[in-house]
Amino acid sequence: MSDLHIYNSLTRLKEKFVPIHAPNVGLYVCGPTVYSDAHIGNIRTFSSFDMIHRYLVHSGYKVRYVRNITDAGHLTNERGEGVNRMESQAKLESLEPMEIVQKYTVGFHAICDLFNLNPPTIEPTATGHILEQIEMIEVLIQKGYAYSVNGSVYFDVKAYQENHNYGILSGRNIDELIAGYRDLDGQEEKKNSIDFALWKAATPAHIMQWRSPWGMGFPGWHLECSAMSTKYLGNEFDIHGGGMDLKFPHHECEIAQNEGCTGHQGARYWMHTNMLNFNGQKMSKSLGNSILPAEFLTGNHPLLDKAYSPMVVKFLFLQTHYSSELDINIKGLQDAEKGLKRLMDARKEILHAKYDVQNTNDGKSEMDMQIEKLCIDCKEFMDDDFNTARVIANLFELSTIINSIKGGQINTKELSGESVALLRKTFDAYLLHIFGLQPLEENNSTALDQVMQVLIDLRKDAKVKKDFATSDKIRNELAAKGIQLKDEKDGTVSYSMN
Amino acid sequence: MSDLHIYNSLTRLKEKFVPIHAPNVGLYVCGPTVYSDAHIGNIRTFSSFDMIHRYLVHSGYKVRYVRNITDAGHLTNERGEGVNRMESQAKLESLEPMEIVQKYTVGFHAICDLFNLNPPTIEPTATGHILEQIEMIEVLIQKGYAYSVNGSVYFDVKAYQENHNYGILSGRNIDELIAGYRDLDGQEEKKNSIDFALWKAATPAHIMQWRSPWGMGFPGWHLECSAMSTKYLGNEFDIHGGGMDLKFPHHECEIAQNEGCTGHQGARYWMHTNMLNFNGQKMSKSLGNSILPAEFLTGNHPLLDKAYSPMVVKFLFLQTHYSSELDINIKGLQDAEKGLKRLMDARKEILHAKYDVQNTNDGKSEMDMQIEKLCIDCKEFMDDDFNTARVIANLFELSTIINSIKGGQINTKELSGESVALLRKTFDAYLLHIFGLQPLEENNSTALDQVMQVLIDLRKDAKVKKDFATSDKIRNELAAKGIQLKDEKDGTVSYSMN
Repeated sequence: MSDLHIYNSLTRLKEKFVPIHAPNVGLYVCGPTVYSDAHIGNIRTFSSFDMIHRYLVHSGYKVRYVRNITDAGHLTNERGEGVNRMESQAKLESLEPMEIVQKYTVGFHAICDLFNLNPPTIEPTATGHILEQIEMIEVLIQKGYAYSVNGSVYFDVKAYQENHNYGILSGRNIDELIAGYRDLDGQEEKKNSIDFALWKAATPAHIMQWRSPWGMGFPGWHLECSAMSTKYLGNEFDIHGGGMDLKFPHHECEIAQNEGCTGHQGARYWMHTNMLNFNGQKMSKSLGNSILPAEFLTGNHPLLDKAYSPMVVKFLFLQTHYSSELDINIKGLQDAEKGLKRLMDARKEILHAKYDVQNTNDGKSEMDMQIEKLCIDCKEFMDDDFNTARVIANLFELSTIINSIKGGQINTKELSGESVALLRKTFDAYLLHIFGLQPLEENNSTALDQVMQVLIDLRKDAKVKKDFATSDKIRNELAAKGIQLKDEKDGTVSYSMN
Repeated sequence: MSDLHIYNSLTRLKEKFVPIHAPNVGLYVCGPTVYSDAHIGNIRTFSSFDMIHRYLVHSGYKVRYVRNITDAGHLTNERGEGVNRMESQAKLESLEPMEIVQKYTVGFHAICDLFNLNPPTIEPTATGHILEQIEMIEVLIQKGYAYSVNGSVYFDVKAYQENHNYGILSGRNIDELIAGYRDLDGQEEKKNSIDFALWKAATPAHIMQWRSPWGMGFPGWHLECSAMSTKYLGNEFDIHGGGMDLKFPHHECEIAQNEGCTGHQGARYWMHTNMLNFNGQKMSKSLGNSILPAEFLTGNHPLLDKAYSPMVVKFLFLQTHYSSELDINIKGLQDAEKGLKRLMDARKEILHAKYDVQNTNDGKSEMDMQIEKLCIDCKEFMDDDFNTARVIANLFELSTIINSIKGGQINTKELSGESVALLRKTFDAYLLHIFGLQPLEENNSTALDQVMQVLIDLRKDAKVKKDFATSDKIRNELAAKGIQLKDEKDGTVSYSMN
C-alpha cells in the first residue's frame, strides 16, 4: 500500500491514511442534483474525486466508490394540478419530475464521459432509498434526536448537542447559528430555528411524495447521503468527499444524523474541494460568467476565445491543488493547452523512440539519478494529499529532459535502459491512469492534409517540369479514390473528398 | 396526427391507433435486467422500440417513453455471509449487488449509445419503487386477489379468475396451466401452483431485502412493471411493449396485477418483438452461438468473419418486420453492410448534387410521379404496424433512381425541384430520424491509406525511372511530417506514423 496522507477537514490536520479494512476503501462523494445542468465548478469537484479514486486504485486499494444522484426534489406543480394528477387521466399532461431527472442524469453522464471520469462503483438515487431514509428517521425519533410535528419530522439539534457536537466539522457555534438563523420554512413548527427537516409533509401540490409513518411527504435534503453511505459503506467508512459549499449545513447535518442514528460519525476522513472562479469572479448565472462544460467544448460563450478540449480544462484543474481556490481565465486555458500538448508530445517521444543507451554495467549516471528522483518524487507528491500540481511540475522538468535527448543536447549514452523505462512508466501512469487524461486526438485528417500537401507539391513540380504525365496521373489517381483537386485563384491547390 | 395501425397482441388484431389523450402517448417497454450483459436479441427488441418511439415522435405525438431497469434481484450471498454483512465491519468485504447493477447499467447504456438508441424519457428502477410495489400488494390483498403466508404474498389467480380473465393476453388456459405447473418455489405455501409471488420473504442470505408489512423480503418479478407503468403513465395508458418471451408469464401477470389493483388493464395496445436466431439456431450460451453486441463491433467471435458496425446490425434488424422471427448469418450481415452503404451513398448524392431540373411550369413528369409514390408509400408502410422492411425496399428503388440520375441514364430535365426536395426529405427522415441510422464513418484513415498508396506508387515509378531526386524527396517530405516509409520484404512499401 501507500504512505498516503490526507488533509482531513474534520480534524483540520493532514493525517496518515489508514483504511478501516485495508485493502478495502469506502469512498462516498456527494453527486449532482439532477434538476439542471452540472456547471463547470461541479465538474472540478467530480474531476478531483475521479483523480483521488484513480490514485487510490493505482496505490493498490480496492475501492468501493459511491456517488449518489440527488433526484428527490421538492418540485410543486405550479398550475395547481397537484390534486388532479393523482388521477390517471391527467398523468401524461402533468409535469413528471422523473422526466427532468432522466434528462439531466443522461446529460451529466455524457459530460463525465467527455471528461473521462470513471463511473462510481455504485450510483444510488435518493428516490431509490426512501424506505432506508424512513427507517433512519424512526431510529432518530426513538433515540430522542428527532420529533414529528404536523406530519413533518425535524432533527432536534439541541437534544443532540447534549451529548454530541453539532459544529464538529464546520466549526460553527450553535448559539450563534440560532441567533443568525433566517430560514422561515417550517419555522413555526420547529423547537429551534437550527433544527433541520428529516421529513417534510407534502401538500397535494408537491409532485414527488411518498407514504410514511408521518403521512405523505418527502425526505429532507441531508438525509439521503446518510442513508446511502451507511447502506453501502457501513456505519464507519473511510472517506467522504464533496464541494466546500456542502460543508455546512449539508455535511454537518450528515454527521449529526449518522452519529445520532448509529453512534458513529460515518466517514473518518472528510475531503473538500475548493471553488472555481472565472476572471477572479465567482461564477454565477446573474454575473453572466457561468460557463457550462459543454460551452468550453464548443467555445460558444462570450468569455471564451475558442473551444477547449475537456482534457485541457481538466489539466488546468490538476495544475492547482484540489483544496485551493482556482481562478481560470483565457490565458490559463491557453497555457494549459500548450502545457498538456508538451507533456503528451514528450510521452509520445519517449514511448516510441529507440535510444542507443549506456551499457547496464556502467552504473547510474548523473542524468539517470536526476530522472529517477524526478519520477519517484511524483509518488511522494501524490501521497502528500494528492498534490497533482507538483507532479505536473516534475513532468514538465522530465519533458525538458526528453526534448533535450531528442534534440541531441543530452547524449543518450548518458542514459540507462532503466531510466528510459522509468520515464515511460511515469508518463503513462500519471498522465493516463491517475489524471485520466487522454492523448490529444491523433488527428488523421491532419495527417491526410500533410500527405496531400506532399502530393500537391509533387504535382506542381511535375507541371513546372512539363511532366504532364505525372501531374495528370496524380490528379486521376486521386479522383479514382474520390479525392478532387481544385486549383484556387490564389495559385494554391485545395482538395475535397466525396 | 397519423393514420397509424398497430398489431395488438391483446386482441390479436391490427387496430387503428387511438391514443387516450392525444397528442400525448404513454409507452412502456420492459427494460434490461442488469445482472449480465444484454445480448444481441435484447438489442433487437430495444432497437425496435427505439424505431417505434422515433416514429411516434416523427408523427407528431408527445411521447412519454418509460423503460425500466430491473435491478431488484434475488442474489444470495453464497458464502453464507448474509448475517454478518448487516454489520458494518463486513460491508466492504461482501458482495454488493448494487455494484453489479451499476456495472451492467453503465454497459447497457454504452451499447445503447453505440446503436444510437435514444434514452427513454423516464428510466425507473425496481429498487427505486419498493414502496409503490408494497402499496400495490396491500390493495390486492384488500380486494381479495392476494394472500400472505409465512411472510410472502402470492397473487390468487383463481380468485381473480372469478371475475376476470387470466390468460387474456397469452391465450393460455388456467386449468392446463395448473396441470402442467412444475415450479417448486414456494409451492407448499401457495393455494394453487399457478399463483405467483408478489412479495417473497427473505432469508438472511438474501442480500437485497426491504422491510414490509409482511416482514423483510423482496418484490416478485412481475410487480415492478405494474407499479412503475401505473405511477408514470396512469391506470390506463397506450402502449406496452417487450420481447415475445415476456408475454407469458410476465405480461399476463402484469395485466392481472393492474386489473386487480386499479380495475384497468394498464395498456390498451400490447406489442411484442420477435426472437433473433443465428444460422437458424436460437442463440444460447450453451450452443456457443450467443453473440454479445460488443462482439459484433470487434468481430471477435468464431461465428463472425469480421467486425460489423452497429449501424449495419441495426439495418439488418430493420429489414425484417419487428414481429417476425429474424435469422441472421454472415451473408445477411454482408448484404446489410452493402445495402446500408448503398442507401447512405444515395442520400449523400441527392443531398449534395446540383441538378439542372425541369421548369416548374412543366407539370409532373412520369419520373416525378414515380418518385412521389415511392416516397409517400413509405409513410403508409410505417403506418401499417411499422413495416420498416417495405420502407427499405422503397428506399432501394429510390436509390436506383438516384444512381441513374447520377449516371445520366435519367435526364435531370425529367425531374422537378419538388422531386429532388422530396427525395432529400425522405432519405433524411427515414434513414436518420426514424431508423436512427448514422452515416457510415467518413473514414479518414482509409482516405489516408489511399493517398499514401498514390505517393508510394509515384515513388516506385520515380525509382524505376532512376529519378532519385523525386523518390528521395517523397521519402524526406513524408519523414518531415512524421510518416516513415518502410520497404517490406515482399517488395511492397508500408508506412507508419509517429
